[in-house]
Amino acid sequence: MKILFTGDMVGSAGRQVFQRVIEKLRAEGRVDLVIANAENGAGGRGPSPEIAEALLNAGAAALTLGDHTYDDRKLIPMLETESRIVRPANLPPGSAGRGMTTLETDEGPICLISLIGRVFLDPADCPFRIADKLLNLCSAKTIFVDFHAEATSEKIALGRYLDGRVTGVFGTHTHVQTSDETILPGGTAYITDLGMTGPKDSVIGRDVEPVIQKFITGMPQKFDVSKKDPALEGVIVDVDVATGKARSIERIRERA
Amino acid sequence: MKILFTGDMVGSAGRQVFQRVIEKLRAEGRVDLVIANAENGAGGRGPSPEIAEALLNAGAAALTLGDHTYDDRKLIPMLETESRIVRPANLPPGSAGRGMTTLETDEGPICLISLIGRVFLDPADCPFRIADKLLNLCSAKTIFVDFHAEATSEKIALGRYLDGRVTGVFGTHTHVQTSDETILPGGTAYITDLGMTGPKDSVIGRDVEPVIQKFITGMPQKFDVSKKDPALEGVIVDVDVATGKARSIERIRERA
Amino acid sequence: MKILFTGDMVGSAGRQVFQRVIEKLRAEGRVDLVIANAENGAGGRGPSPEIAEALLNAGAAALTLGDHTYDDRKLIPMLETESRIVRPANLPPGSAGRGMTTLETDEGPICLISLIGRVFLDPADCPFRIADKLLNLCSAKTIFVDFHAEATSEKIALGRYLDGRVTGVFGTHTHVQTSDETILPGGTAYITDLGMTGPKDSVIGRDVEPVIQKFITGMPQKFDVSKKDPALEGVIVDVDVATGKARSIERIRERA
Amino acid sequence: MKILFTGDMVGSAGRQVFQRVIEKLRAEGRVDLVIANAENGAGGRGPSPEIAEALLNAGAAALTLGDHTYDDRKLIPMLETESRIVRPANLPPGSAGRGMTTLETDEGPICLISLIGRVFLDPADCPFRIADKLLNLCSAKTIFVDFHAEATSEKIALGRYLDGRVTGVFGTHTHVQTSDETILPGGTAYITDLGMTGPKDSVIGRDVEPVIQKFITGMPQKFDVSKKDPALEGVIVDVDVATGKARSIERIRERA
Ligand SMILES: [Fe+2]
Ligand SMILES: [Fe+2]
Ligand SMILES: [Fe+2]
Ligand SMILES: [Fe+2]
Ligand SMILES: [Fe+2]
Ligand SMILES: [Fe+2]
Ligand SMILES: [Fe+2]
Ligand SMILES: [Fe+2]
Repeated sequence: MKILFTGDMVGSAGRQVFQRVIEKLRAEGRVDLVIANAENGAGGRGPSPEIAEALLNAGAAALTLGDHTYDDRKLIPMLETESRIVRPANLPPGSAGRGMTTLETDEGPICLISLIGRVFLDPADCPFRIADKLLNLCSAKTIFVDFHAEATSEKIALGRYLDGRVTGVFGTHTHVQTSDETILPGGTAYITDLGMTGPKDSVIGRDVEPVIQKFITGMPQKFDVSKKDPALEGVIVDVDVATGKARSIERIRERA
Repeated sequence: MKILFTGDMVGSAGRQVFQRVIEKLRAEGRVDLVIANAENGAGGRGPSPEIAEALLNAGAAALTLGDHTYDDRKLIPMLETESRIVRPANLPPGSAGRGMTTLETDEGPICLISLIGRVFLDPADCPFRIADKLLNLCSAKTIFVDFHAEATSEKIALGRYLDGRVTGVFGTHTHVQTSDETILPGGTAYITDLGMTGPKDSVIGRDVEPVIQKFITGMPQKFDVSKKDPALEGVIVDVDVATGKARSIERIRERA
Repeated sequence: MKILFTGDMVGSAGRQVFQRVIEKLRAEGRVDLVIANAENGAGGRGPSPEIAEALLNAGAAALTLGDHTYDDRKLIPMLETESRIVRPANLPPGSAGRGMTTLETDEGPICLISLIGRVFLDPADCPFRIADKLLNLCSAKTIFVDFHAEATSEKIALGRYLDGRVTGVFGTHTHVQTSDETILPGGTAYITDLGMTGPKDSVIGRDVEPVIQKFITGMPQKFDVSKKDPALEGVIVDVDVATGKARSIERIRERA
Repeated sequence: MKILFTGDMVGSAGRQVFQRVIEKLRAEGRVDLVIANAENGAGGRGPSPEIAEALLNAGAAALTLGDHTYDDRKLIPMLETESRIVRPANLPPGSAGRGMTTLETDEGPICLISLIGRVFLDPADCPFRIADKLLNLCSAKTIFVDFHAEATSEKIALGRYLDGRVTGVFGTHTHVQTSDETILPGGTAYITDLGMTGPKDSVIGRDVEPVIQKFITGMPQKFDVSKKDPALEGVIVDVDVATGKARSIERIRERA
């Protein structure tokens, strides 16, 4: 089964290119299932229920989130009821929503876990120990982890820690795709960052000029989300869902 | 002129693979000049004078540094006298060493600038404003900037800010190569991170297991530099030194 | 001359207690001039022009600001025209407003400087070097510095650096008054933090329960500014304005 | 029972003033029991076994630690066996040492808990939730918490969270004593920071000049621990050990 994981979706340009590219990839037989990180789906902020719904309708089998999970409080009820959306599992106990879900597919169940890093990010529970706990609860052979984190050291360390125990670990959050996609020694597919599904002519999704002005002047700026040069970024992983083994990982960047 | 820029060099494995790969690339005619980020050259820490000397002798035309510049205080005198090593130019005035240098080549002068980011890193002067100041002082047409920074937003913003005014802006520091090498709209070659010239079977250069243990237990660990699976990472930029225009940028990862 | 410096003003409770207490202190002859840090004057955020105006009318001879300077963009024009408000002088060149001002008093001119720290705060220019530059421009004998910073090490270091060169260095930003008010060896009055002029029954100005919930659950909360148990905190410094020497520094905490 | 809690002990000057002052306070009948934060006991770094032993012999009934717990690995075995030393309880499970201990006194048992903050500090487990867990395990009526943290908001929030459930919450880590000692509404004694037991003529314990140079130049410095003007800082809490109620909290700063 060929599963596409896409990096942080940003704004309407991201949503449009997502829909068009996955239709094309499906039509070409290159992708069977799509899982999207949607954490900046609403103009750079966390998705509204309408946007989350639209992405699921557009063909995402499930959505992952990140540090922008609760930007839009109206999403909170949906996080409780919609089993196809996961937020970081190492948020405090009692946080709205779930950190792990199981997707039923023709080839068998796929477990999807979201975790968030702690280096250069807000406090959270230990992603390594929470991963251990969740893996004990998970009966599927095929398991994917979206690790939403800033520091390369933390991302690679978690990838190596879970190597051989999950099908894939894919980093998100930096909005820049890395070139280190690989099958780790233990058989786990890995990439440090999936990149961004959004406007490439931008600074991680925002219009260029105000961001530069902010860095130089420190004065408040209006950070509009760019619409220029949208592309979908992520990886396609070929998986034997029966065994949970990743056969290959391929990095992609596609314009509509 | 084909110029190779290599990402953060880590340890003896990094130094060996560097030497062997650049010899091969030169022999194959793929590279005319080599500039190396050497900030972790000494077992993960900043280089000693001996290591800096060895890298220059091994074929680096110049070395750039980063947040590890002063790890080895014995390097300080060499930073004052050796014009082929640059440390971040936006360190405070009076810091040992220089932030900009000019390399004379057969095709003309090449100006090399080092800058360091401020997001998730120690305080420093504004890299955007210091870049403006240095560009006023620089008479070469061909100008390269090593931007040693953590945050993708800051790196892309500086790239865009300097686009059209310099030949290339190449990020370093994260030790993971990104896949976004490009010629920006204004003609500047750009990549968010060159990656690492060091042991790929590692967590950004260190042995895997102690780093994982540090993340999980918080207890002190001995962080040895890995020697496993060394590779050189960076970009080759084809430049018209007479005009300072980048014709192309190509990402490379080479094992010895 | 007895000069009162008050710590970060928070919300309407802070503004009310400020007005009442300074009237009382003036009536009692305990205070001749009042300088207030107003950075959280508007419900915890930076002051509006109306609030800044009201504080000046209520008896503040000048206002200092901090990291919340530009929270309310409507203040920006006033920062350009109103010489009695200073924002951190080590913001980038070209930032709206001024970082130093001179107050004319019956006993002579008083120079007021605002600086912001860089440890655990956003990037800024070096407060130590900017202080040197401003002191060269300043002809008054009596000079006060509001150092708006988080880390005790940075605050004490700046106090010691300016000791003997200015009349007083007073820290702000943490909203908790320290007990280390002193005349430093060189004669400069110093305290690490003036404290808060606002509701003491709070978490640094905000209602207690939502802040606790935020720490525990990470879920979004509505952070209302408390109105309970307002107090004015700061120091009274007795100064010989002719010589610029601080005769004494006294810590105060007064309820209305 | 009058219990003295002392702030971060720094170096030999701190150890000497500690010993002399507590002898004096005991002789004067002002203090019955002493608990000391010892996290910088060894020249600014975490204590060695010898230094920890010496402090216990000098009259400390127990020692608390902080982010410097494991600076000296030779302390690790002692942390496992010596029940009178506590390190932050919200370090990862399996960390060497204990986070809670019970001291037997003539008037009854006293429970001592160490916790560490997460704002501007390394990742750790949630101090609020770990406090709940420990309080369930603790049968003593008299309970004290050393909260080793940087941010005033986090410290006050934990104090308010535990108000009425413990006898006292005392902040440490900033090395600057705050002036907000109080009995909170629920009866818990509280101060945001106990201050430092060490050389006051210093920057949080270090010689002044190298710290200033580090801030200005960024160049490496030798940070010797100061020996000048040592003082003991902390609070004396009068407690009814039978009920666990704090009758009063008094801030102290004593030179030998
Ligand atoms: Fe994102
Ligand atoms: Fe994110
Ligand atoms: Fe670096
Ligand atoms: Fe590096
Ligand atoms: Fe404030
Ligand atoms: Fe502030
Ligand atoms: Fe300390
Ligand atoms: Fe500490």
